[in-house]
Amino acid sequence: MSQAHAYTNTHDIIAPILARHSMFENVPAETVALFANKAKLKPATKSKVLFLRDDPAEWFYVVRYGWVKLFRETLEGTEAVIDVLPSGHMFGENSVFENDQYSYSAEVIEASELIMLPTELLKQTIADNQTIALNMLASMARHHRQQSREIEHLNIQNAPQRIGCFLLRLCPQETARSITLHLPYDKTLIAARLGMKPETFSRALNKLKQETPLTINGPTVEIRDIEKLVNYTCNHCSDSFPCEDLNLKR
Amino acid sequence: MSQAHAYTNTHDIIAPILARHSMFENVPAETVALFANKAKLKPATKSKVLFLRDDPAEWFYVVRYGWVKLFRETLEGTEAVIDVLPSGHMFGENSVFENDQYSYSAEVIEASELIMLPTELLKQTIADNQTIALNMLASMARHHRQQSREIEHLNIQNAPQRIGCFLLRLCPQETARSITLHLPYDKTLIAARLGMKPETFSRALNKLKQETPLTINGPTVEIRDIEKLVNYTCNHCSDSFPCEDLNLKR
Repeated sequence: MSQAHAYTNTHDIIAPILARHSMFENVPAETVALFANKAKLKPATKSKVLFLRDDPAEWFYVVRYGWVKLFRETLEGTEAVIDVLPSGHMFGENSVFENDQYSYSAEVIEASELIMLPTELLKQTIADNQTIALNMLASMARHHRQQSREIEHLNIQNAPQRIGCFLLRLCPQETARSITLHLPYDKTLIAARLGMKPETFSRALNKLKQETPLTINGPTVEIRDIEKLVNYTCNHCSDSFPCEDLNLKR
Repeated sequence: MSQAHAYTNTHDIIAPILARHSMFENVPAETVALFANKAKLKPATKSKVLFLRDDPAEWFYVVRYGWVKLFRETLEGTEAVIDVLPSGHMFGENSVFENDQYSYSAEVIEASELIMLPTELLKQTIADNQTIALNMLASMARHHRQQSREIEHLNIQNAPQRIGCFLLRLCPQETARSITLHLPYDKTLIAARLGMKPETFSRALNKLKQETPLTINGPTVEIRDIEKLVNYTCNHCSDSFPCEDLNLKR
């Protein structure tokens, strides 16, 4: 009985989160309920590895709260951070197009709670349900655009500009001349996310502080002149500030 | 009458090319014929700009023969080469998820012939035809994987390793110890494709020649020990040689 009760609660927590996700936009409530019924809530502590690349993919995930790092490792053991995802974001769902194996590894980087959903159900649903297939296409197109810009930045921007871009993405769209921000995760991980060694990151941050008025105190960043930072950074990008995807749909 | 005759010929040329493309895999011949009927064959000379980023997207394209460069420009005018596509490849189709605007510019880099297809028809067909939607999802998943690896390489590999990877991708899957290759397009464009300035590219190529036995004579490259090149390059990648996507479906 208590089992059944707990189960209902879990469904009630999960269904509204799924319903808000772009994957389930315009999808009938019954279909969302199918997923919510098969879902599990999984708490995870920092450093928990959720899956490794090439593992058989039984589940895909939505971050309920916390942060998750996606990465790949070279044969020599160097880690490439592909993405760092906050709450609301989905991952692992692309495994249905990867022979049911994960194409990256996933690790929790601070205490998090995850919604686990069966990939098998997603596979069946994509095949039958045109709306879910189209939502997934739209979401992949957004990822494609983000990745194209990331490749462009790695090709064209210098390290201080890439840090400037990372900071501007944390700013709200409507912002005053100056703003105080909090870094979302630690600097070592920001460096890895931006494809920099820690020492490159430190040097680049110092250079950025010389170029635009900026103070960094632990995780707190004070940008004193947004426009200067925009000029320094966004002139070396094919998009203008504020980015279209700043308030990106998931 | 001659108009009608020319039209029939064009359809007969285009339909089999489309039918072989992964976008139309398992799609009924009538649907393929719908596209072939609306298609146009467009010859284009070197340097012809097919469209610019943000142009309204009326057409998407398949390269019948030749090469097409996809790129984006920063506000300052620096060009980032996103891809260089040979025959058989499709581009511009993602505009149906980008408010019917192109998200990059496209320029022909040598005498080419292109198949132009109306994006409007694609939009309608994706909405009705589950097979085309699923084929497009599979194709986007492949692009996603390629882009993820490209980001990984830009983050982790040095310039000579990135050139090594480019060369290995030109090798057939089953290859002897040594091989002679032809560079598919000129070195300036290869440098841009790999996100390098020409002088960085030259230095990196010299370094690569020191590390593995390699001769380059104009567009001809002789790799004298594939295994050495693989060790030098692929240990710094999360995939092992030969890459799964070497003989990539389009």
